[in-house]
Amino acid sequence: MVVPRSTLTFTVLVRVGGGRARTAVLKTAHGQVQTPAFMPVGTQGSVKALGPDDLRAVGAEMVLANTYHLLLRPGPETVQKLGGLNKFMGWDGAILTDSGGYQVFSLAELRRLDEEGVTFRSHIDGSEIFLSPEKAVAAQEALNPDIMMAFDECTPYPAGRDETLASAELTYRWAKRCLAARSKENGPALFGIIQGGMYADLRRTAAAQIAELDFAGLAVGGLAVGEEPARRREMIDVVSEIVPRDRPLYLMGLGTPEDLVEGIARGADLFDCVLPTRNARNGQLFTRAGRLVIKNQRYREDDRPVEEGCPCYTCRRFSRGYLRHLFMSKEILSYRLNTIHNLTYYLSLMRRAREAVLHGRFRDFYDEFYNARVGREDDADDQQQ
Amino acid sequence: MVVPRSTLTFTVLVRVGGGRARTAVLKTAHGQVQTPAFMPVGTQGSVKALGPDDLRAVGAEMVLANTYHLLLRPGPETVQKLGGLNKFMGWDGAILTDSGGYQVFSLAELRRLDEEGVTFRSHIDGSEIFLSPEKAVAAQEALNPDIMMAFDECTPYPAGRDETLASAELTYRWAKRCLAARSKENGPALFGIIQGGMYADLRRTAAAQIAELDFAGLAVGGLAVGEEPARRREMIDVVSEIVPRDRPLYLMGLGTPEDLVEGIARGADLFDCVLPTRNARNGQLFTRAGRLVIKNQRYREDDRPVEEGCPCYTCRRFSRGYLRHLFMSKEILSYRLNTIHNLTYYLSLMRRAREAVLHGRFRDFYDEFYNARVGREDDADDQQQ
Repeated sequence: MVVPRSTLTFTVLVRVGGGRARTAVLKTAHGQVQTPAFMPVGTQGSVKALGPDDLRAVGAEMVLANTYHLLLRPGPETVQKLGGLNKFMGWDGAILTDSGGYQVFSLAELRRLDEEGVTFRSHIDGSEIFLSPEKAVAAQEALNPDIMMAFDECTPYPAGRDETLASAELTYRWAKRCLAARSKENGPALFGIIQGGMYADLRRTAAAQIAELDFAGLAVGGLAVGEEPARRREMIDVVSEIVPRDRPLYLMGLGTPEDLVEGIARGADLFDCVLPTRNARNGQLFTRAGRLVIKNQRYREDDRPVEEGCPCYTCRRFSRGYLRHLFMSKEILSYRLNTIHNLTYYLSLMRRAREAVLHGRFRDFYDEFYNARVGREDDADDQQQ
Repeated sequence: MVVPRSTLTFTVLVRVGGGRARTAVLKTAHGQVQTPAFMPVGTQGSVKALGPDDLRAVGAEMVLANTYHLLLRPGPETVQKLGGLNKFMGWDGAILTDSGGYQVFSLAELRRLDEEGVTFRSHIDGSEIFLSPEKAVAAQEALNPDIMMAFDECTPYPAGRDETLASAELTYRWAKRCLAARSKENGPALFGIIQGGMYADLRRTAAAQIAELDFAGLAVGGLAVGEEPARRREMIDVVSEIVPRDRPLYLMGLGTPEDLVEGIARGADLFDCVLPTRNARNGQLFTRAGRLVIKNQRYREDDRPVEEGCPCYTCRRFSRGYLRHLFMSKEILSYRLNTIHNLTYYLSLMRRAREAVLHGRFRDFYDEFYNARVGREDDADDQQQ
């Protein structure tokens, strides 16, 4: 029997007096991750449109890859034979894989869900696949990230109380099976996932149950699934009041810049979301003032960068006019340049949050963030589209 | 009246005794171009999937942009207002623009061709556009490349002798109008285009006529339009025997690696083609041994680079297995990595040709090129697809 040991260490540097915002260092076998950290999403083993050098340049220290997608193609065994995810992707930074649970319930055609696991059809070729806590851990061990996630059932939204309770309890039983399924002594660190839907008491119970298990980190799942932001923040509050603060707290699938700032204020350490990369490909660029919709006619002959003072490659080298032309012409370069800018915005936001915490001025950072967003120029246009 | 002066200088360094292969330096306002040179094609003001840093990294010194495409979108005036093509693209190397002639006859719905010029419909929005020698020169002056091309009629293939003669003569009359239409003292250098179809005597006449005009360089148009390679080479021979050797000779739209090597052997200095970039996006990778079709199942778990010893970013960092995965998954990064490799192959081939000429061993280079291509592994698969 193996005794899994996490090589991960988590050192809290500063926690703000009064509030919960904090900054810490998560040490992995692939370098350290300064938290709060945002993980760009590399669904199929590639953060869409970027190479690993681009990821370094935008300031990423950890990226996320989706087990569900890599399970279907090219398969964990292939990634393993090619040396594991880091070597496969040419990325020497940290990697976190999710367990596939979320995608099974959102992307695949579900065939059967029972105590043992889930049978579903691949959205690529229709083949039938079985996934369980044991299979999800084995797949992630083959991918060999720094952090892997427990296999959970992502509670649908909206969901009644009984359904939510049953789902949280199944996730709890699966969590224990995931811990037991680890087969490598120095394999990936395992994080547990807290479900409980939009019910404060169920979230509290789930948080307490998952927190008492031997997980290297704790994650909140089932958020950003359609609920009001106020409800989302209430659930984060409920969980963050309960969980022990010696381990990283990860808010899965969040989110907007506001979600990040509110999450940090509530003590969260890790975030991931497709928003900055997906919006980039749709021509929506993040700036401190708000979103800039690059296809707007007003940018046709605009020789300014997307954001004055932004240190990214895109802003240093290209005008809004050129970026608009690339987007209108569907040039491949458009997706890369837009993604570089949006991720730089996200990762700079996290860096500024960390610095604010370190200097004891998180509250000022928080206020400045919202003040800068008054008068954003394109959001009005956006509403009309 | 302006007196256009070309800032271009062309200095032949070595010409091989016996054969026509030579190496030279073309000095432009945006750096020097060592010839024989291959120009990657940036159709819409972007070499598809690459940024300007990638272009430098693969060894490009001059790129081509298409006036036809930029005329339709975003328009030469917009490019001019954004500082000209170099600033627009963020590219500080040399740029050559074609005149739009080729695309008008191959892409647009042609409405009317007469002595004055061509009326056609935009393939983007169907709007009616008129292009003439004067308009093509004005558009290119607005784009402001280092080299612009005369507006010609690209003779169709196949074409009868009378049709070909009429076309070459129209191109000659248009060539003189292009020279007279220049409006800037230090504007782009203007190259003339030699037509004449597949008729040796018409090519000779056209070459002599175009060569006697005040062009800074001479180009051969109307090749690689469907003719046999042997016929193509015969036409190149015919022209290169006639034209004065004090100016660069540019073979437009060529071509395959074989076309390049054969063109260099016949004294050509400049080349452009979409083949390396387009094939990259189709997953066909160039190697010394031949083409490698990356989607092949045999590369699924292949941890070798595309080509051992290739210095490109793609080969230094990624396995065939990962590149296959990216291609099968339609990841945007696939197009960039494949393009980086293919252009590195093309530009390395040109560099090796230049070095061979400099060291008096072009014949060896020529033989080595063909010897290495025996036993290429994927071309057989290719034929079956």
